[in-house]
Amino acid sequence: MRYAVLGTGIVGRTVAARLLSLGHEVVIGTRDPAATLERTEYATWQQAHAAAGLAPFAEAARLGEVLVNATGGQVSVAALTDADAAHLDGKILIDIANPLDFSRGFPPGLEPVDSDSLGELIQRTFPGLRVVKTLNTMNCQVMVDPARVPGDHTVFLSGEDAEAKKAVRELLYSFDWREHTVIDLGGIETARGTEMLLPIWLRLMGTLGHTDFNFHIQGANRTE
Amino acid sequence: MRYAVLGTGIVGRTVAARLLSLGHEVVIGTRDPAATLERTEYATWQQAHAAAGLAPFAEAARLGEVLVNATGGQVSVAALTDADAAHLDGKILIDIANPLDFSRGFPPGLEPVDSDSLGELIQRTFPGLRVVKTLNTMNCQVMVDPARVPGDHTVFLSGEDAEAKKAVRELLYSFDWREHTVIDLGGIETARGTEMLLPIWLRLMGTLGHTDFNFHIQGANRTE
Repeated sequence: MRYAVLGTGIVGRTVAARLLSLGHEVVIGTRDPAATLERTEYATWQQAHAAAGLAPFAEAARLGEVLVNATGGQVSVAALTDADAAHLDGKILIDIANPLDFSRGFPPGLEPVDSDSLGELIQRTFPGLRVVKTLNTMNCQVMVDPARVPGDHTVFLSGEDAEAKKAVRELLYSFDWREHTVIDLGGIETARGTEMLLPIWLRLMGTLGHTDFNFHIQGANRTE
Repeated sequence: MRYAVLGTGIVGRTVAARLLSLGHEVVIGTRDPAATLERTEYATWQQAHAAAGLAPFAEAARLGEVLVNATGGQVSVAALTDADAAHLDGKILIDIANPLDFSRGFPPGLEPVDSDSLGELIQRTFPGLRVVKTLNTMNCQVMVDPARVPGDHTVFLSGEDAEAKKAVRELLYSFDWREHTVIDLGGIETARGTEMLLPIWLRLMGTLGHTDFNFHIQGANRTE
């Protein structure tokens, strides 16, 4: 499969590396490839992952059969607008971003929040996309290697398109997520719930002093 | 110990019953005791729990050595205003409420949210109280009987007063919460994080079809 990973930060690079290791083709999408390559952190990663392409958002979106939104949540709609709706129509977008708002400092708030979500905003703005919100409730290392956290823990799915959610489930399994730890919450509206886990996630990171933790819904697999 | 449980709904009654069963004295606080007794649901409960007192907020708060806020989050400040600041000063308030806002229908949103929380609002409005936010992230049956949910799962603490948090911890242990499942997130500001668990909690209730589940922070007890 050919994936376009939109976003060149640690989240995008971590997911891209995992996709490459699984034998997929990956094109990283960015606003300005030349500027991205001037960043030492990115350039170092690119050298170590020479198979990954780097292209402007529109070219990456054109090439990608499945898209991953790993841009900052405050610029996701702008990035997808750059990507061009013609390159989005009918494609699955795996939205792993959160609408973190650092305008009031740290810890960040969320915008939108509560009565809307980034997942819904993207689905509403680009109705041709098949948005599946997932993986946004944990550190990126845990996203692609759930065994970093011992024991069972949960990954959520939100989205309107059952086929798209099924395809994303298969991708999660290939990342070594186990079937009984995936909870499909329902439509994209439920992304409000998963995005609103970020404030406690950030405070837990501070309290615990590490990022190798995750939410587990205890009692979800009750059998009666 | 003499507890004042403010609020006559299922949450208040469930916590009150557990406190009684542990040998504590309990006074239930309400706006209008006569009106409360006219509600069949409450009257039936009162008959079965004759040891529980019922009094206006101010009288309950005066009698209680420790207060429990089990009122609806949208009316908590009004109830505590009724209770009279003179009866609150220096007392621990265990805030188990959430600021659920049903004005847009179901599922409810939160108000305040993200840049403020009910826990902070109460602490700010009644600086003489020693507010400890806890237990607000699960069904009330689970609050007082964590074994309803199999396996380890988490209860959070937020508050400014270390002594108050220690006292509330002891109460949690008496409810059969185990020490390693209690996470102290820090100051009352962290109540933003726990209150913002409610949106996904409500959606999980819908998806799972029951309320015997709880959040567990997997990886919180990492030993390295």
